[in-house]
This record gives sequence, structure tokens and C-alpha cells, in this order.
Amino acid sequence: MVRFMKRVSKKVGLSPGTLVHIGEKKTEQVRIRIIDFDDQHIEERDLGAIEECFPYKDTLGTSWINIDGLHEISVIEKIGQHFNLHPLVLEDILNTDQRPKMDDHEEYAFLTLKMLTYDDGDHQLKMENVSLILGSTFVITFQEVEGDIFASVRERLRKAKGRIRKGGTDYLAYALIDAIVDHYFVVLEKIGDEVETMEEELVTRPSPETLQLIHHLKRELIFLRKSVWPLREVIGAIERGELALIQEKTTIFFRDVYDHTIQVIDTVETLRDMVSGMLDIYLSSISNRMNEVMKVLTIIATIFIPLTFIAGIYGMNFKYMPELEWHWSYPLLWILMFAIFVVMLFYFRRKKWL
Amino acid sequence: MVRFMKRVSKKVGLSPGTLVHIGEKKTEQVRIRIIDFDDQHIEERDLGAIEECFPYKDTLGTSWINIDGLHEISVIEKIGQHFNLHPLVLEDILNTDQRPKMDDHEEYAFLTLKMLTYDDGDHQLKMENVSLILGSTFVITFQEVEGDIFASVRERLRKAKGRIRKGGTDYLAYALIDAIVDHYFVVLEKIGDEVETMEEELVTRPSPETLQLIHHLKRELIFLRKSVWPLREVIGAIERGELALIQEKTTIFFRDVYDHTIQVIDTVETLRDMVSGMLDIYLSSISNRMNEVMKVLTIIATIFIPLTFIAGIYGMNFKYMPELEWHWSYPLLWILMFAIFVVMLFYFRRKKWL
Amino acid sequence: MVRFMKRVSKKVGLSPGTLVHIGEKKTEQVRIRIIDFDDQHIEERDLGAIEECFPYKDTLGTSWINIDGLHEISVIEKIGQHFNLHPLVLEDILNTDQRPKMDDHEEYAFLTLKMLTYDDGDHQLKMENVSLILGSTFVITFQEVEGDIFASVRERLRKAKGRIRKGGTDYLAYALIDAIVDHYFVVLEKIGDEVETMEEELVTRPSPETLQLIHHLKRELIFLRKSVWPLREVIGAIERGELALIQEKTTIFFRDVYDHTIQVIDTVETLRDMVSGMLDIYLSSISNRMNEVMKVLTIIATIFIPLTFIAGIYGMNFKYMPELEWHWSYPLLWILMFAIFVVMLFYFRRKKWL
Amino acid sequence: MVRFMKRVSKKVGLSPGTLVHIGEKKTEQVRIRIIDFDDQHIEERDLGAIEECFPYKDTLGTSWINIDGLHEISVIEKIGQHFNLHPLVLEDILNTDQRPKMDDHEEYAFLTLKMLTYDDGDHQLKMENVSLILGSTFVITFQEVEGDIFASVRERLRKAKGRIRKGGTDYLAYALIDAIVDHYFVVLEKIGDEVETMEEELVTRPSPETLQLIHHLKRELIFLRKSVWPLREVIGAIERGELALIQEKTTIFFRDVYDHTIQVIDTVETLRDMVSGMLDIYLSSISNRMNEVMKVLTIIATIFIPLTFIAGIYGMNFKYMPELEWHWSYPLLWILMFAIFVVMLFYFRRKKWL
Amino acid sequence: MVRFMKRVSKKVGLSPGTLVHIGEKKTEQVRIRIIDFDDQHIEERDLGAIEECFPYKDTLGTSWINIDGLHEISVIEKIGQHFNLHPLVLEDILNTDQRPKMDDHEEYAFLTLKMLTYDDGDHQLKMENVSLILGSTFVITFQEVEGDIFASVRERLRKAKGRIRKGGTDYLAYALIDAIVDHYFVVLEKIGDEVETMEEELVTRPSPETLQLIHHLKRELIFLRKSVWPLREVIGAIERGELALIQEKTTIFFRDVYDHTIQVIDTVETLRDMVSGMLDIYLSSISNRMNEVMKVLTIIATIFIPLTFIAGIYGMNFKYMPELEWHWSYPLLWILMFAIFVVMLFYFRRKKWL
Repeated sequence: MVRFMKRVSKKVGLSPGTLVHIGEKKTEQVRIRIIDFDDQHIEERDLGAIEECFPYKDTLGTSWINIDGLHEISVIEKIGQHFNLHPLVLEDILNTDQRPKMDDHEEYAFLTLKMLTYDDGDHQLKMENVSLILGSTFVITFQEVEGDIFASVRERLRKAKGRIRKGGTDYLAYALIDAIVDHYFVVLEKIGDEVETMEEELVTRPSPETLQLIHHLKRELIFLRKSVWPLREVIGAIERGELALIQEKTTIFFRDVYDHTIQVIDTVETLRDMVSGMLDIYLSSISNRMNEVMKVLTIIATIFIPLTFIAGIYGMNFKYMPELEWHWSYPLLWILMFAIFVVMLFYFRRKKWL
Repeated sequence: MVRFMKRVSKKVGLSPGTLVHIGEKKTEQVRIRIIDFDDQHIEERDLGAIEECFPYKDTLGTSWINIDGLHEISVIEKIGQHFNLHPLVLEDILNTDQRPKMDDHEEYAFLTLKMLTYDDGDHQLKMENVSLILGSTFVITFQEVEGDIFASVRERLRKAKGRIRKGGTDYLAYALIDAIVDHYFVVLEKIGDEVETMEEELVTRPSPETLQLIHHLKRELIFLRKSVWPLREVIGAIERGELALIQEKTTIFFRDVYDHTIQVIDTVETLRDMVSGMLDIYLSSISNRMNEVMKVLTIIATIFIPLTFIAGIYGMNFKYMPELEWHWSYPLLWILMFAIFVVMLFYFRRKKWL
Repeated sequence: MVRFMKRVSKKVGLSPGTLVHIGEKKTEQVRIRIIDFDDQHIEERDLGAIEECFPYKDTLGTSWINIDGLHEISVIEKIGQHFNLHPLVLEDILNTDQRPKMDDHEEYAFLTLKMLTYDDGDHQLKMENVSLILGSTFVITFQEVEGDIFASVRERLRKAKGRIRKGGTDYLAYALIDAIVDHYFVVLEKIGDEVETMEEELVTRPSPETLQLIHHLKRELIFLRKSVWPLREVIGAIERGELALIQEKTTIFFRDVYDHTIQVIDTVETLRDMVSGMLDIYLSSISNRMNEVMKVLTIIATIFIPLTFIAGIYGMNFKYMPELEWHWSYPLLWILMFAIFVVMLFYFRRKKWL
Repeated sequence: MVRFMKRVSKKVGLSPGTLVHIGEKKTEQVRIRIIDFDDQHIEERDLGAIEECFPYKDTLGTSWINIDGLHEISVIEKIGQHFNLHPLVLEDILNTDQRPKMDDHEEYAFLTLKMLTYDDGDHQLKMENVSLILGSTFVITFQEVEGDIFASVRERLRKAKGRIRKGGTDYLAYALIDAIVDHYFVVLEKIGDEVETMEEELVTRPSPETLQLIHHLKRELIFLRKSVWPLREVIGAIERGELALIQEKTTIFFRDVYDHTIQVIDTVETLRDMVSGMLDIYLSSISNRMNEVMKVLTIIATIFIPLTFIAGIYGMNFKYMPELEWHWSYPLLWILMFAIFVVMLFYFRRKKWL
Repeated sequence: MVRFMKRVSKKVGLSPGTLVHIGEKKTEQVRIRIIDFDDQHIEERDLGAIEECFPYKDTLGTSWINIDGLHEISVIEKIGQHFNLHPLVLEDILNTDQRPKMDDHEEYAFLTLKMLTYDDGDHQLKMENVSLILGSTFVITFQEVEGDIFASVRERLRKAKGRIRKGGTDYLAYALIDAIVDHYFVVLEKIGDEVETMEEELVTRPSPETLQLIHHLKRELIFLRKSVWPLREVIGAIERGELALIQEKTTIFFRDVYDHTIQVIDTVETLRDMVSGMLDIYLSSISNRMNEVMKVLTIIATIFIPLTFIAGIYGMNFKYMPELEWHWSYPLLWILMFAIFVVMLFYFRRKKWL
């Protein structure tokens, strides 16, 4: 089974809206955290049960409910009921193979994105699905594992940095999406570093391992591309103001995220071009080497095969071979051989093989 | 004749609307089944003759007529007359080489899709045409063989699971299309598994058979792609609400199918990229090996050809060869040969061939 | 001069509308046939002179004038005058290198299409230009040679099959265009058969001739593609109702032709992909074989070159070579050689060359 | 410096509208010719000074001023002042590296096109810029050298052939543009001839020179494509009626030119595909040959290396070699060798190398 | 880390609008220059502190503030406050990895472009970000280093050449952008020169170094392309009049810049095609050479291996070898060998290897 393709087949034949968790169970326990804030106050706590977050739906301030871990379907179901979410939305939250998309359900909007990390050790791209429900007074985020990607947003909330405490749910949503997209640059930089290292290796000491790595990287970039392209549409739609829940003054920030997305896509394409170019370099360097190996073989063989033949001639045991008796035969033969050798060298030099 | 291209030529020269079954006869007998249901009741039975289904056209409930087997043209003809279908629609139902498409005929809509299965045994994609007539009170489906793909829909109808019994003909149509598209994921997973297996083989023991399989898979993906792309337009048009027979509240479900279609297309493209990449890996690994083979040959030949030449020299039978008489000639020659051997090794090491 | 490019240069510098026949003269005599029909009657005859068809312009029924052979410019000129055709239209009729296109001149519409045939014998695509003038009471068709492609339409007219006698000029135009497009499937099937045969050959006995055929087919598909793509626009425009002369009820039939055109294009693209894939298969199979040839050479050479060297050593004629005198030298040497042979075999097996 | 890229850098840093002639000076003297005509009369003369053409601006008839040679900037400047042309237009006229384009300046329109010729001798495409100012009573054309491309238009003017004398400035502009585009077919035919010749050569006697020519032609087609594509937009815009100066009845003629342009583009793309295909043929034929060379070498070496080894064995000088003494050794050895030879042949035949 | 990708990751987790300088510090000190001018007067001076430029915001004339060096964030911050710029704009000014773009903020417009230079020495493209704030009375430009690219604009301002002193801020912005885009032609010419040189080298003396250079140039063109494509949208938007700050009479000048941009893109694509073509030439010339080397080896080996075998036969020491005793054996053997030699030559000639 190809990594990044998940067993969606277990859902086949089920009624739409039937909740099935698709993907691995990456965390032991579901962790629910809430941050409720407005301009003046901030309240942050871990919830024992999902029901505890329900009252926050109707508070005046902005409530951000973050859920880490998707394998307890009952949690998702209860949220769905209380916040009045469409069954298909719940299904999409649980499907970690979901393509990035944005659905506008008027009272709330549903967004799902890919969170990426790159593991330098085994040169592997890891993907995690992040879903986000944006309501007028609340934002709910769903992550597969407890990650630290939103830590900086939390920090800014606590310290009331920038406009984040005054910005409402749409600005909070922006801050969260921005955090995810910003993280793509970290991944791209890591891959960029690998490309750089590989390039040097290609020049100094190319090996089949380098080739393997090139092919591997090429593949990772295929996957990266697949997760990044749909983002363009999603954020582009928000930037064009297609989402009523996003206030106009926040749109400019989404335009910024959109620019970043375009830049991420550009960089992915550039990296793809570069890696393809490296494959060409590798192959043409192999061709070059083979050519050189062939030349050495040919030069040696072409010089010595005729000489060996001559030596063979005078190694024959015929009774009547006049040359064998002559006194100067042996030194003359050396001269002949040397002459052949010199002629050959000239020939190769004219052919530019030497 | 290329598989997947069917002998359409037998229709050439016929009047449009002339009914000819294009494709193989895949089933012995035509089977006609009807399910008539509404919120409260459900009636399911096998029909002996097509005429028995006519009364259901005007019942209040939703009637789903399913026909397995297309080779009895009279059956199709009678349906056409009773349900007032355009002759071109009947022609398209019978043409199993039909490209996926959707035609809106106001009173009814005509849809035709490809049903896919993948046979692990001979690594072959099988295709079957499924047509669907959507009226305001009835849905008629046409399959080439009696398949089990709609079994889950039937089950949900019987058990009144989800909204399927309350949803009307448009929701039923959605459920049927969804069942087909969901099945694509099963096919993609199987191909994904093959790709995975092939990749391992490519690393551990590449063989011309692997290459054959890569080429074969590449071809199957060409066909897969050809049947999946048109789906996008078809379902996209429904999702955008271009079909008056689809109620607005059902549109959201078609948006879900549309997302799945996009994901299927994405996955097909990714698999294509991966299989192309595997071809590159195979070819560059062959180049690598050839290079290595050449090196071994060259090293052996380059070392021994000159040495053999020297041995040849002293195998000559000239009468006057002073070296032959000297006492230390033989051991000195061994030393000379060893020196040549060492010099060669250094040369190859400097060239990084060893 | 590339086949399919015709000497258009002889027209350079002429006034637009100057009538010059571009293409070969493919038939000896110009043949003019007329079929005049309505719901009730049908009249069919061969005309001696073009002037005889003029009265039919204003009859109530539908008149179909068919002209086979384009080299008698005066015929075209007279038609142009009587039916009031634009000089550029006449120019296009005579230019058999014309790209498929449709021009709406309000009182009449001008269509030009490519008629294709495939010659299995020399694997060559043959192209013929077919032009069609659609008026409200007449249809005029121009063919390069007397072909049998419209025979089925004539037959249906005579037998009053389907709606063809009641359909007016637009339905007649549809029937003629449909006949042309349907014929494409015949060509595609023939090419499909060739592809199939070639594939088998590629597996069982690949030869440079197969390669030649692949390249040839690839080229024929380039030409096929070039003539088929513009068709899409032409028929698409009619289907969208851009031509006032086509009644709305006929539009649905053009939608059917449009679907066929798309399918033709799809199939051409698929065949192109397949032929490209076959080229890859051929080239990688050559690489495979070369690799294998190299291995055999290397194994033989690597085993025997050192052994021959050893034999050479003991073929030397030095006076003082102690081994030569020993009693067990010869059998020991055989043992040594056998040991080298075995070591080599192990080495090759470890390298997976055997 | 790549041919077709001209030293635009000498303009860098200058004020826009500063007149600098970019390109080579291809003609010695600037030649100015005027043809003033209407339905009834025609006046044609060579002008000594540019000022002489100024009165024609306001005559009732149509005036066509043709200027051959761009290097005398003062001429261009004076025309600009008198005919009230925008400085940027003058700049573009002088820049022979200008991309084909059309600018509508309300009172006049500015068009610039590429005039192409193909030199069979050195297989080189030559490009020349042709600019055209279209006013309501005058047309001004600028050419780099005195060419004969407009000779046919002049001839038609003189002989009052077709509608050219009655057509006004827009029809004259059409006739001139048509003359240029028609000439493209001449160039394409010449290249087509070369392609044809090359193809034959490729089959009968492929050589590195053929390869060079293929690469050369490929490059020429890149340039051809670069100059032809923008034409599509330019003439397409006129055909769609975006230029107020073109009367509606003339539009149909531009539609004809547009069709020709599309056909030119189609042909260029087809030629590109064909030339790429030829490269593939060449490379695969080289692979084929290399494979064959390798086979011959391998067969010879694999047969004789073991035999030579055996001969070497019995050339050794050991004192105690029993076989040497036996009477039938020599004939038996010949039989053994022949057996090895036969076995080898069978092996190669089974491998299909023979 | 790949050149052209800058460490954006240091911004990850920061609040949007937090000012961080991304890129290298390329200059020691920030230099601030102002030119204030109108039709009548011009004032030009270097400012010690950024505050000195504030009064110019409200002068009647046009003020152009140029800032070289981005590393002093306080300078950017103060400008931002005084000129009322959005924090995201300031962030983009400081991010030298920014993609070319244009943002309309109603009171002012923000543009950012890439300034390119090409270093012939190390064949490297250098990139610098240039940002531009266009207000109704002021233009502010930000450069990474003190460059001479705007020198010509300054000169024209001083000398009141052309319409630059009368044109207002929008014309000034045009002049500045035009200066940047014009400079691209200089870069393209330099690359064009390299391509030309490389081509000659490829024909006269191809070497792995040429290959390296081809790959290098291919990569530089990837980067060039990446920076040039977005320009098209940016300037296209201005040309279409989407920016209210640009007066209509200035739009025509932007159309000119737009044409240049298209031409730059065209040229980049053509250069890419050419460099790709060169890679093909190199690889096919290597194939050719390898083929030739193989032929020489095969000819020599195929001729001499059988001859050596024959010599080996008669070097054997069997007691009973009748040929050894015959008187004419030796000369006959020479004749036999010569015959074999001649036959081989004929064979090779028939195979066209000689």
C-alpha cells in the first residue's frame, strides 16, 4: 500500500455521514483544550469531557476549542450535534486522507488542510490532517496528534500580542492557517538543504545511493505538490471574499497567506525542476564515465591485441620459419612493435581519445 | 484490437437511434428488479417481463428499476417507449464504449458512468458501463452484468438507514453514483498495493518482468485516467445545480461526490507520476549495472592483456634472444609483471573504478 | 515535401478569392448527383451539367447536390454565382489542405471536414477534404473523389428510414456529418488493431522493423490528431446553437456527434500514449539485451583472460624456469586454473550476473 | 550572441520614445514609394524626400506610403510628427526585435509583423520586421530592406484586380497582411521539403551530419514558433472586430487570414513533432547499431577466447605433459575445439543473437 | 540551502506584521536620498535621518524617496508610521524572498519586483528585491544595495528630458519599473552570449565541463523564469487600468512595459528550449562517440582474435603435428591470415562500419 494513500475502502458501502476514522491512531488519548478570550480577559483550560465545552458556544468572547486525536468517534459526534454540524463535515474531519478544501455552510465554515513535517533522518515527509470549524463565536480545530504547531498562536493570545485578542474568530482562523502555511517554509527549507547537499555529492562523489536519494526526493515532491496545490483554491476563495464569516478587514491578511501559498507552490515546482535536472546530470555523468571506461579498454586492447598477435606468430613451432634464424630478428621485432605502438598513439590522439 | 476499444464500426452507416448492442454479451439472461419505496413502505421484487414495471412509473413513491444485461434490445426499446426516452439515449445505453456523460432532457436526466474493477490475478482493469435514468418518480439503472455494487444501497433501503428512504429520486441517484465512485477507491488501493510491491521488487531484485509489469501498469493507468476525467465534468455540472431534477438540499451530497472524484483524479495522476518514476529508476539502475559490468571487464582486460603480451614475447622461438639465456630473467619478469599490476591498480583507484 | 502538406505556395500573390485547385486531381471526371426529396416523394439523378441543378435551389423540398471531383474550377465557379457564395468560400472548397472549420454566412453556412481512410497495406492514413454548404432549402457537398461514405445516407433517404425525409436540410447536414465522424471509428479500430499486433510482436520477436512501424504509427497519429482536434470546435459551436440554420430540435443530434468527436479525440490521445509507451518498451528491452550481451562477454573474458595469461607464462622459453622441470607442475596448474574458475563463478553469482 | 536576439541593451537607460534603430543596417539607402489610388485613378511614384508624401495624408483617395530601410531616424521622426504618431510607436517601428503586436490608437492603428524567408543554402530562417500604420486615408508600411513581398499587391493595384482599388485602407491593410502570412506557407513548404529529405537520409544513410541538421531544424522551428504564435492574437483581435478602423465587410477577409494563421501554427507544431520524432528514430537506431556491434564483438570473443586458451595450454613447455606425447592429441584437440565452436553457435542461436 | 531560497523560517511563529529582515545584509549603511521636483524646479539631497523626508509627503511637487539597505528595521518602521503603510506591506518590503506582486491599498499602491544581474565570471544570476510605494504625491523605493539602476532616471530628472518632470508620480513609477525591466534585456543578452559560446564549444570541443555549464545555465534559467513570470500579472494588471493611482494617459506607457515583459518571458522560454536542445546534442554526441569507440574495438578485436588463435594453434608443442614439418606451412599460413583479414574488411564494409 502506497504511503499517503489510506485505506478508504473500509468506508465503501456505508451510508454517507456514517462516521469512520480513516488513518492510524496516532495518539493514545483525546485531549480537549479550550481558550476563551476577548480583548480584556483570557481563560485557558484542559477539558475532561467534551460536554464541558458546550457552554462556550454562546459566550460573547471568542472560544477556541482544540481537539487532539480523532479516534474517539463519540467525541466528534457530540460536537457535531451540539454545534449543529452537517454529517458530511464530521465524516470529512475523521477522514485523514481528505484533500484540502473549504465548505461554506452559512452558519459555519469548514476547512481542512494538511500539516506537513519533514524527517531529516529517513528523508520522509509526514502528513497530518488539520480541520477547522469557523463559527461566528467559536473556532474548533481537530488535529491527529498533539502538536506544537499552534503553540505560537497560544503564546500570542496569552501575551495579547498584535491584534489577535481583538480580531474575533476570523482573525483567529487566519492566525491558525497562517501558522500552518508558515510551517511549509520550514519543510521546504529542509528539502532545499537536502537538495543542496545532494548537488555537492553529485559533483564530488556520485554513487547509486545519490541516485536513490534523488528518486526518493522526487517522489516526496510529488506528494508535497499534491497537498499544496488544492490549498491555492481554498485560500484564494477566502481571499476573494467568498466566505461571509470573514470580515473584510481580515481579508487583507488572507491575501498575505495566499501570497505565501503561491510562493510555496512556486518553490515546490522549482525544487521539482531542480531534482529532475539532477537526475539528468547523474545519467549524463554515467554516460560520460561509461564512455571513458570504454576508451581505456579500447586503447589498451587495440594496442596490445595486434602486438600479442605478432608475438604469437613467432611463438609458432614450424620447422621452416626463416625469420627465426636471422640474427637481428628479435631487436627488429621490438622496433616494429614500438612503431605500431607509436602509430596507434597518434591515431588515438587524432581521434581525441587521449 | 486494443482492449477497451470496442467494435463501434458495426454501427457505421445506421440511422441515429438505431439500437445496436456494442460490447460483449456478459450475462445469459436479462434480470429486471424493482424496488418501490417511500418513507413508510418498501416493496422489492424480480420482474419476469419488462412490462410489469410500467405501472410503477406513476406511483407516488420512488421506484428504482434495475436492469442487468443489455443484449436484449427489445427490453430497452419497450422501456424507451413507455418512459418516453429519446432514441439517442437508448443508443447510448446500449453502447458500452460510451464516454461518461450527463444529458438533461428536462423530464428526465440521463447519466452514464464507468464501473471499474481490478483483477489482481492478471493485473487487469475491467470496465463496465452503468447508465442511469433519473425521473421525478423513478430511477432506472442499466448494468452490463449482475453486479454487487448496488447491494449496499439496497441494504440501506431495506433497513431504512440514513435519509435514503425519505430522499426522493435525486437522493437515490446520489446514493447510486456515490456507490460507484466509492468503488474507485477500492481499485486505486489495489493498484497502490501493486505499485508498493513493485517498488520493493525494484530495489531488491529488479528483473525484466518487473519492467513488463511497470509498463503494464502504466497502460492500465492510461485507461483508468481516460474513464475518470470525464466524470469530473459530469458530477461538477450536477454539483453546480445545472440539473433541475436535483433538489438543492441534495446538492451538498453531490459536492461530496465531486470532492471524491477530484481525489480519485489526483490519486490517478500521482500513481502515474510514481510509475513513471519507477521506469526511470529501472532504466538508471540498468545503466548503473552496465557501467559496473564494463568496469570489471575493463579492469581485467587492461591488467592482463599487457601481461599476456609480455608472456607472448618470451614465448617466441627466435634463435638469438639474449634474455632467454640469462639466469635471472624469469624471476625479474615476475617482478616486472607485478610492478605493472600494482601500477594498474593505482591507476584504477585514482580513476575511482575500485 | 511532407505528405499532408500540400503546395499552397502556388496561390501566393494571388488576389483573395482567385480560384485555384490545391491538391492532386484524384478523379477523372466531375460527377454531379442530385437528390431532391420531401416527406412524400424522392427524386434522384445524375446531372450532365452543373446548370441543371440550379432550378432545385428554389423548390420546396430539400435538395442535396453532391459533387465528386474538384479540378474543374468552372463548375465550382458557376455554383458560386448561382447560389451566391462568397469567393473566399469557393477558394476554401478548392483548397484540399484546408483545416476543418465552419463559417456562418447567414443565408448559408459553410463547413469543411476531413474524411479519413486507413490503408492496412502500407499503414498509411489517407485524407480527403469534404465541404458542405448548408442552405435553408439545399445542401451541397463537395468531395475530392467519388466515395461510398454517403452511400448509407442515400440508402436511408431512398427507404425513408428514420426521420431523414422529414428532417429538412439541417437534419440532412447532421446525417452527412455523422456519417463522416462515424467513419473515424473505423479508422481508429484499424489503427487499434495494428497497435495490438505490434504489441504482441514487441513481446515475442522485437526487431528494428517493429521500431520503424512504431515510429510510423506515431507519425500517422500526429496527423490524425491534427485533423481531429479542430472538429471539436466546429461541432461544438453547432451544438451550442451558434448556427441559426440549425433548428433547435436538431441540436440534440449534433450533441450526439459532439460526444462522438470527443470520444474520437480521447481515443487518439490514448493511442498516442500507448504508442509512446511501446517506444519506451522497445528501448528498455534493447538496453536489457545490451546489458545481457555485455555480461556474457565479460564473464567469458574475465574467466579466460587470466587463465590464458598463466598458460602464456609457461609457454615462455627462458632457459632457467624451475617450474618447467618439476614433475607435478602440469596437474597442479590445472588445479590452480580450476580454482580460479570456481572463484570467478562465485564472484559472478554474488554480483547476480549468473 | 544568439541570432534572433538583437542588442536591445543599447537602449537601456534612455527615455521612452527615444528613437534608436535596433538591428543591422540591411540596406544602403532609404527608399520611399507612394501609391495613391481610388476606384478611378492610380498614381505611383518614388519620393526623393519624406516631406513629399505629407500632402497625401489628406487626399480623398487611399495613399500607401512604403518605406524600405529603417536606419535614417530622421525620416521616421518626420513621419511621426506629420502623421501625429505616438513616440512609443516610432520606437517600436525602429526596434526590429519587436514581438508581433497590434496597438489601437483610435485615429490610427499600429501593427508589426515578422516577415520570414528560409535560405535553403545554409538552412537558415531569416526574419525581417514589417510595421504598418493604418489610418482612415493612408497606410504606411516600414520594411528593413527593399523586398519583393508586396510586389503582387502593387500589381493588383495597377491592374485593378479584384476589389483592391475599391476597398479603402482597411482592405489594403488586409491585402498586405495576407501577402505576409501567405509567404509563411512558402517557408513552411521549404522546411517541409528538408524534413522529407532528412527522413529519407535517416533511413538510407544516417550520419552525425543528419543529426546536426535535425538539431538545427529543431532550433529553427523554435524561432519560427516564437514569431508565429503572437500573430494569432493580433489577427484574432482584428477578426473579432476590435479595431474600429476595419469595416465590417472587411472583417470576413481577416477571418480568412486568421484561418491561415491557425493553419501555419498547426503546421509548425506538426513539424516540431515530426522533427522530435526523427531525433528519437536517430537515437534508437544508434542504440540498435551499438547493440549489433556489441553482439559481433561478443560472439567473436566468446568463441575464440576459450579456444585460444586451450591452444595456450598446449603451448606450455612443461617437461611432463603426457598429452603432448600422445599420437592422436592434435586431431582430437581439433575435434574438441570444433565441438566448443558448435556449442557456442547453438547457444547464440538460442539467445537469438544470430 | 539552495541559493535563491532564503531562510524564511526565522519568521515562523511570529505575529503577522512583525518586522524581520529576511536576506543578507548587503550594505553597511542605510542611504536615504530624496528628489523633489515639478515642472519648474528640482531638489536633490541625501538625508541623514529618515525623519527629514517626512515634510515632503505633503509638498505639491513629486517626491521620490530612495532607500538603499533594508537591515535597519527602525527606518522602515518610521516610514510605515508616517506614510500610513499597512504592517503587512512593511513585512513584505523587508522580505527579500518576496515574489513579485502588486497590492492596491487605495491611498497608495505597493509593488515589489526582482532586480537581476548576471555575473559572467561565475555564471551566476544575482537577484535583488526592489519595492516601490506609489502615492499620489510621493514614490518611495527600497533597494537592498546602493545600485546604479535608477541612475538614468535620475539623470533624466536632472536634465528634464522627455516628459518625466511633468508626468507626476505615476509616470515616475513607470520610469522606474521600465528601468528595471529594461535591465532584464541586459541579463538575457549576457546569457544569450554564453549560450552562443557554449554552442560553438559543443561543436568544436565538447567536454564534461561544457555539460556542467549547460546544466548550470539550465538551472539559472529556472530561477530567471520563476522571477519573471509573476511580473506578467503585475504589469498586466496595471496596464488594464486596475490601479486608480495610474492616470489613463500613463497607461499606454505601461502597455509598452507589458510588451517588454512578454518579450522577456518569450526569450527566457526560447533560451530554455535552446539549452534543452544543447543537452540533447551533447548526449547524442556522446552516444555517437561511444558507438565509434565500440566499432574500433570490435574491428581490431574481431580481426586479431581469430588470427591470434591460429598462431596459438601452431605454437602448441604436440609431438605429432604434421603441419609443423611441412615446408610451405609458414608462408601458407600467412596467406590464410591475410585472406581472413580481407574477408573481415569486406564484412565490416558491408556493415558500413568502415
